[in-house]
Amino acid sequence: MITHISPLGSMDLLSQLEVDMLKRTASSDLYRLFRNCSLAVLNSGSLTDNSTELLSRFESFDINVLRRERGVKLELVNPPEDAFVDGTIIRSLQANLFAVLRDILFVNGQLVHAERFQQLNLENSIHITNLVFSILRNARALHVGEEPNMVVCWGGHSISEKEYWYARQVGNQLGLRELNICTGCGPGVMEAPMKGAAVGHAQQRYKDGRFIGLTEPSIIAAEPPNPLVNELIIMPDIEKRLEAFVRLGHGIIIFPGGVGTAEELLYLLGILMNPENDDQVLPLILTGPKESEDYFRVLDEFILNTLGETARKHYSIIIDNPAEVARQMKRAMPKVKENRRQSGDFYSFNWSLKIESDLQLPFEPTHENMENLNLHPNQPPEQLAAALRRAFSGIVAGNVKEVGISAIEKYGPYKLHGDSNMMKHMDRLLQGFVEQHRMKLPGTAYEPCYEIIA
Amino acid sequence: MITHISPLGSMDLLSQLEVDMLKRTASSDLYRLFRNCSLAVLNSGSLTDNSTELLSRFESFDINVLRRERGVKLELVNPPEDAFVDGTIIRSLQANLFAVLRDILFVNGQLVHAERFQQLNLENSIHITNLVFSILRNARALHVGEEPNMVVCWGGHSISEKEYWYARQVGNQLGLRELNICTGCGPGVMEAPMKGAAVGHAQQRYKDGRFIGLTEPSIIAAEPPNPLVNELIIMPDIEKRLEAFVRLGHGIIIFPGGVGTAEELLYLLGILMNPENDDQVLPLILTGPKESEDYFRVLDEFILNTLGETARKHYSIIIDNPAEVARQMKRAMPKVKENRRQSGDFYSFNWSLKIESDLQLPFEPTHENMENLNLHPNQPPEQLAAALRRAFSGIVAGNVKEVGISAIEKYGPYKLHGDSNMMKHMDRLLQGFVEQHRMKLPGTAYEPCYEIIA
Amino acid sequence: MITHISPLGSMDLLSQLEVDMLKRTASSDLYRLFRNCSLAVLNSGSLTDNSTELLSRFESFDINVLRRERGVKLELVNPPEDAFVDGTIIRSLQANLFAVLRDILFVNGQLVHAERFQQLNLENSIHITNLVFSILRNARALHVGEEPNMVVCWGGHSISEKEYWYARQVGNQLGLRELNICTGCGPGVMEAPMKGAAVGHAQQRYKDGRFIGLTEPSIIAAEPPNPLVNELIIMPDIEKRLEAFVRLGHGIIIFPGGVGTAEELLYLLGILMNPENDDQVLPLILTGPKESEDYFRVLDEFILNTLGETARKHYSIIIDNPAEVARQMKRAMPKVKENRRQSGDFYSFNWSLKIESDLQLPFEPTHENMENLNLHPNQPPEQLAAALRRAFSGIVAGNVKEVGISAIEKYGPYKLHGDSNMMKHMDRLLQGFVEQHRMKLPGTAYEPCYEIIA
Amino acid sequence: MITHISPLGSMDLLSQLEVDMLKRTASSDLYRLFRNCSLAVLNSGSLTDNSTELLSRFESFDINVLRRERGVKLELVNPPEDAFVDGTIIRSLQANLFAVLRDILFVNGQLVHAERFQQLNLENSIHITNLVFSILRNARALHVGEEPNMVVCWGGHSISEKEYWYARQVGNQLGLRELNICTGCGPGVMEAPMKGAAVGHAQQRYKDGRFIGLTEPSIIAAEPPNPLVNELIIMPDIEKRLEAFVRLGHGIIIFPGGVGTAEELLYLLGILMNPENDDQVLPLILTGPKESEDYFRVLDEFILNTLGETARKHYSIIIDNPAEVARQMKRAMPKVKENRRQSGDFYSFNWSLKIESDLQLPFEPTHENMENLNLHPNQPPEQLAAALRRAFSGIVAGNVKEVGISAIEKYGPYKLHGDSNMMKHMDRLLQGFVEQHRMKLPGTAYEPCYEIIA
Repeated sequence: MITHISPLGSMDLLSQLEVDMLKRTASSDLYRLFRNCSLAVLNSGSLTDNSTELLSRFESFDINVLRRERGVKLELVNPPEDAFVDGTIIRSLQANLFAVLRDILFVNGQLVHAERFQQLNLENSIHITNLVFSILRNARALHVGEEPNMVVCWGGHSISEKEYWYARQVGNQLGLRELNICTGCGPGVMEAPMKGAAVGHAQQRYKDGRFIGLTEPSIIAAEPPNPLVNELIIMPDIEKRLEAFVRLGHGIIIFPGGVGTAEELLYLLGILMNPENDDQVLPLILTGPKESEDYFRVLDEFILNTLGETARKHYSIIIDNPAEVARQMKRAMPKVKENRRQSGDFYSFNWSLKIESDLQLPFEPTHENMENLNLHPNQPPEQLAAALRRAFSGIVAGNVKEVGISAIEKYGPYKLHGDSNMMKHMDRLLQGFVEQHRMKLPGTAYEPCYEIIA
Repeated sequence: MITHISPLGSMDLLSQLEVDMLKRTASSDLYRLFRNCSLAVLNSGSLTDNSTELLSRFESFDINVLRRERGVKLELVNPPEDAFVDGTIIRSLQANLFAVLRDILFVNGQLVHAERFQQLNLENSIHITNLVFSILRNARALHVGEEPNMVVCWGGHSISEKEYWYARQVGNQLGLRELNICTGCGPGVMEAPMKGAAVGHAQQRYKDGRFIGLTEPSIIAAEPPNPLVNELIIMPDIEKRLEAFVRLGHGIIIFPGGVGTAEELLYLLGILMNPENDDQVLPLILTGPKESEDYFRVLDEFILNTLGETARKHYSIIIDNPAEVARQMKRAMPKVKENRRQSGDFYSFNWSLKIESDLQLPFEPTHENMENLNLHPNQPPEQLAAALRRAFSGIVAGNVKEVGISAIEKYGPYKLHGDSNMMKHMDRLLQGFVEQHRMKLPGTAYEPCYEIIA
Repeated sequence: MITHISPLGSMDLLSQLEVDMLKRTASSDLYRLFRNCSLAVLNSGSLTDNSTELLSRFESFDINVLRRERGVKLELVNPPEDAFVDGTIIRSLQANLFAVLRDILFVNGQLVHAERFQQLNLENSIHITNLVFSILRNARALHVGEEPNMVVCWGGHSISEKEYWYARQVGNQLGLRELNICTGCGPGVMEAPMKGAAVGHAQQRYKDGRFIGLTEPSIIAAEPPNPLVNELIIMPDIEKRLEAFVRLGHGIIIFPGGVGTAEELLYLLGILMNPENDDQVLPLILTGPKESEDYFRVLDEFILNTLGETARKHYSIIIDNPAEVARQMKRAMPKVKENRRQSGDFYSFNWSLKIESDLQLPFEPTHENMENLNLHPNQPPEQLAAALRRAFSGIVAGNVKEVGISAIEKYGPYKLHGDSNMMKHMDRLLQGFVEQHRMKLPGTAYEPCYEIIA
Repeated sequence: MITHISPLGSMDLLSQLEVDMLKRTASSDLYRLFRNCSLAVLNSGSLTDNSTELLSRFESFDINVLRRERGVKLELVNPPEDAFVDGTIIRSLQANLFAVLRDILFVNGQLVHAERFQQLNLENSIHITNLVFSILRNARALHVGEEPNMVVCWGGHSISEKEYWYARQVGNQLGLRELNICTGCGPGVMEAPMKGAAVGHAQQRYKDGRFIGLTEPSIIAAEPPNPLVNELIIMPDIEKRLEAFVRLGHGIIIFPGGVGTAEELLYLLGILMNPENDDQVLPLILTGPKESEDYFRVLDEFILNTLGETARKHYSIIIDNPAEVARQMKRAMPKVKENRRQSGDFYSFNWSLKIESDLQLPFEPTHENMENLNLHPNQPPEQLAAALRRAFSGIVAGNVKEVGISAIEKYGPYKLHGDSNMMKHMDRLLQGFVEQHRMKLPGTAYEPCYEIIA
């Protein structure tokens, strides 16, 4: 089956040279990337956790760029049926397909320059931030006229029904206050606040609701954009995606999750505790239903015991009170605005936030890198936070990522060295996650991928 | 607590004379009507089935019309708190408040003329239809540029969770096909298709989704508009509301309900079986999940046994197939369009549909009127349908309406005379409803308010 | 030649009763009025001064209202060719045709009630104002969200080229300040400020420019709407048109004209000098190029000598300085706004302005009425202004209107009695107009239609 | 005097690197170019023909790019007063300022790559066309959804009043048919059709009127954008500007002019007579009032006598009939559309039109280059047309351009060699222009800058 799809939203016109680039590279990495991300988008409907399965199920899928009188068209060969209603592609999928084309072409163009000509140097912190900015601007995600209103929602991918409904209620309260939502764009906690906010926006007759989904090639297949995402943006890798979140958002809410969520919190603390960010205003709220109280208590204690009391002033914890979460977020927005105004920074992109390059550059979770992490209190807290974040990042890899799992199989569990007291708290936190069934899907016993050596 | 509310959507400017009318009549019926409908709207959030309770709970509520530099304002005294977010009224409630003002002022203006000057004669079928048209036009509900796309959804007020989710899925499939929804504007089956359609519209990036809620003063308190209704219209009474549904809609879906739903189906058959409507195209689908199969089977058999096989060609029954329901509806739209084009009728208002005045005029369920119903096969089927509809209407009144209940208490059950065979089928249908717990809320034993005398 | 025209802008849906009204009355006054105004609109292109000629040239023209699937259509029989481009009607004419339909139907509906049922009493000042308001609201000319920005431009119908260009420059300066224009909707001074403002709006990328043309049935043929008018409104008679101007406008500019212009100035002074209007803010500027200096000097002296020094504080005269005119107008707008805010009056309609009923009711220029005018200083100045206005109104009629001309032919010139000093000034003013060739088109000698009897 | 200007329309967000580029280069060529073009835009109001004078009059003018919370701002130091109304910049000038920033930054970015890395090769025909495309796309001038409707109007810069009014009437007729206008963006024939079309659009209530001004740095000061231009685009040089005209336009109208106009016609014939363009549909109309009949007759004869009868099928001449011009243009649009559809080319950019590189590359009018032109019939007509175009281009330079005038002063008139018959016709054409006062402004005697050597 072959279908031709017209552009929606972006990338309606490509030059001959651009089309040629994608054509010439039909067998190349760039083409594979484009094809696989497109397939993930088209598969948004069918909920699968497994990107390998997805790719193998649609091996005969193919996509080509054509030039036509009204602009570019995409030719889809054997696309998933669920992407169509009565033979016509669902328009949000259509728009997302062209978002994929846009971001992959743009990023590739920028990276080509970066690599070949050193005009962009992607080890250089300023150049990384400029690339993040350029991608977001090219995606028209930076709205000049808008006052601060973008709330980033983070949290676990697979959550309990109670946590889902709670996140949805928080979303509804945010929507009633005309705040917008930015998430990692998949299901679960990625979807719930958007669903709630959509109803809140409808109640307020707020027409310009923005539901930004920020993703990256390695996860788009496992966490395809949910149907409410109306701005899909594909960042080149996980670190630039994180940077996009914190520079784009005017406030951040963290819902319950597992180790990944702890990692994200440590990433934020690594930024917020940096003395250069002392003047920054970035409200950060940890929240969940009654059932999640324990999760946050354990996490909070761990922070207290490792990074100290001062770390806690960067976030607040609110249990079982969606309206209060939204109210605090809403009240913080004028402060964010005033802060940007005083520093002369954009409302739509937080240039002045300092992100150290160790938070911008990828961390490879090899056994050596894990062993060498400095997990001692003898360092500035923002550096300790960054080191702890890497430790958790490695554990997430060891738990669920291809590369981590095979390394563990080969070399045994990661060995983490550190201050004995700190290591004790870390162990307690991770044991807590195991007990709360947050390390793996319920039903399987958890086999730790790490060993703590105090 | 006193708040001033600005207009949204309509009625932004009133003349001195209009404001005076509402003011002068502070103690009058018109003012009471306006106040009570406004209170019902403000109370949309709190789900209560009981309008008396609602009114008594907010006895101190008051509403006044003020004239200000930017137009009219409404002054609310002691309004329900749930209508506000952080002290500001929710905008859909704000819009609905002014819809109430608009319709009550307009209808009153028209009725005043009708009563005093006989220019409008509200016993005259043409004049009734003109009034229905004028109210809808004044509410800007008749969109000239739009092709047929309005699906009326009917069904029971309190339904099972399975039926709710089914109605929601049907809504989603309708929304994916960019169809709009018109319901009676309350919760349950009034809400489910709108919720589903809202997500479908979002998936299709369809921005102009219309969710019309058609209500009338006697039920608005018990069935306040759900948050998705973005066009609220208050018709003067139940018959004009029914007429508005069938002239505004381009197709009708009936979800499972109780006697009320049977009454609505008979109302439609009373219209569709009228030989003057032979050329009309108005798709009518009865649908529900697997669990509701029985309900529709029993109803279908009753129709067959009373109105005959020809009645069945006016509707189709689809069980447990939301996509098919939406597909059939969508496919019928070009036929509706062509039919209107050929008859030179408006797309947005079906003038040429013939509605006999016995379907336009209210039926008072007195014991005498019930006893005098002609429930014999010796008449044209559309008249028999109308008579059966009145019988069911009386039973609904006897079950749940103030006036009916007290009449039953005083004079005993209604006595229904009719053809013995027909009466047998009627009894079977009603017994079926009793068994399916559709006559009253589950938990109470049903005491029939009627007696069938063959 | 027969063409069918679809609605544009308004009146897209008519009820059966409304269509019937226009049909039934095919031979009636209402139909004639509708037909003649429609013909005038269709003839906007061809510049003729003579409505009788126009009507006789298109005797075979006919217009019918049809109901069709997408709403109402107008059937035009033998319409003027200039209204079409390549067989398709020019869209502004199309919109104006439906504005005619809208206003004539609406006003007729209101007047019918007024006459038959006394609900509206058109001798009652409040009811007249309510009617004016209702017509403007029904034409959607009252924009609630807009801040004061509507400048009414008055002046002679046939002006010199220099005056035309001057008015155009004033318009450009008004447009550059994002002010809108309301005129009597014909050519000359009615058109020049609109043309200038349209360019000014384009320079400012101001998309919502409003060019309101206020007309009435007796002059629409002689002064058809110029092509820039984007809101055409047909008031029922000349007095309601004047009232619409002063309640709709936030400032008034008077360009050079003849007796008619003097009449308009006296109308305004009759209102502004009313002590009940002491708190009103309504900037009034008389302006023209160097060449018109004399005209305004003579007029100003006449005002001084009849109504006294206090009259002059209600207007300012600016010669040859378009930017200054616009600057003063622009600076007055916040004062107008504040004034409305304080009195709680609409920005879009000046309810609180007091207009005495002798300025609201038509003045019939019979010889008797003219002779009975009280042109003595022994009265409040606003009443004297109103009496002087009537005198000038009679002279305009005697100069150019059918009814006046034939009365003069029959009974000789009007006899004006009055205070001898005042009469002297009046004579001087009128002589001045004669000398400036402002009493008739240049080329013909002016034969006075009045006799001043001190 | 220092003012800060916010962005309008484009370039609202710049990255740090981009701002740095403009800042760093404050003394550089790039900054001078940016400053001078900005000054030209700000000076649009004051009509001067002399860009040197302009630059010297505002020597103290300075412009800086600042980054602020709502995006970029421009700081203007000592800007021309006429750019402001009551202290606020006129919005079309504001938008045009940012168009300058956009195009200069973008083109510079592209050219930097081109020069440094050879990714773009600006001697390569395909790369030139891609650059033209990229500039227009970046300026959002390529509207995907629009059907062919863009009429390019060319003609002399200084024209007679009759020609001005004629061009305006043609514009009105084009506007009445909802066609858009693209010109070189200055006064005279650049302005007249836009003025006419703006009124035509208003008559048709056509809101999306596009008035594209295509300019380039060397002429923007002498021909600043007229106030109606709502899309200003600055191409890097004259050849890319010409290419933008022919790939963007769907039809071309040539009004009377002088040698420059003849040059443009020859440029078009050089393209249209190319056999590779046999299938192209590009309507070309030469038109003017009665007074210009001679001009076109002489030109037409010259074409006939040099390029032959077949050249004439590529254009038609219409004298004194604005409606006919517009009608022919309008009727051609569906053919243009069908042609693009068949060749699969964009509606908004004519990729498939073949432009030989000798028409894409600049021609330097040195005495040597002029002498070496092959002005003989022994070559394909499209090459002859290109050679003749260069001859006229040189004569224009010798008449009015700095570089040409000083070369003539130094080395005497250009010597043109060619076929004697052809040279005779050329001489006759040029003599005709002299007689019609089209070689210089009226009043001065024309001293030929060329010598024809048969």
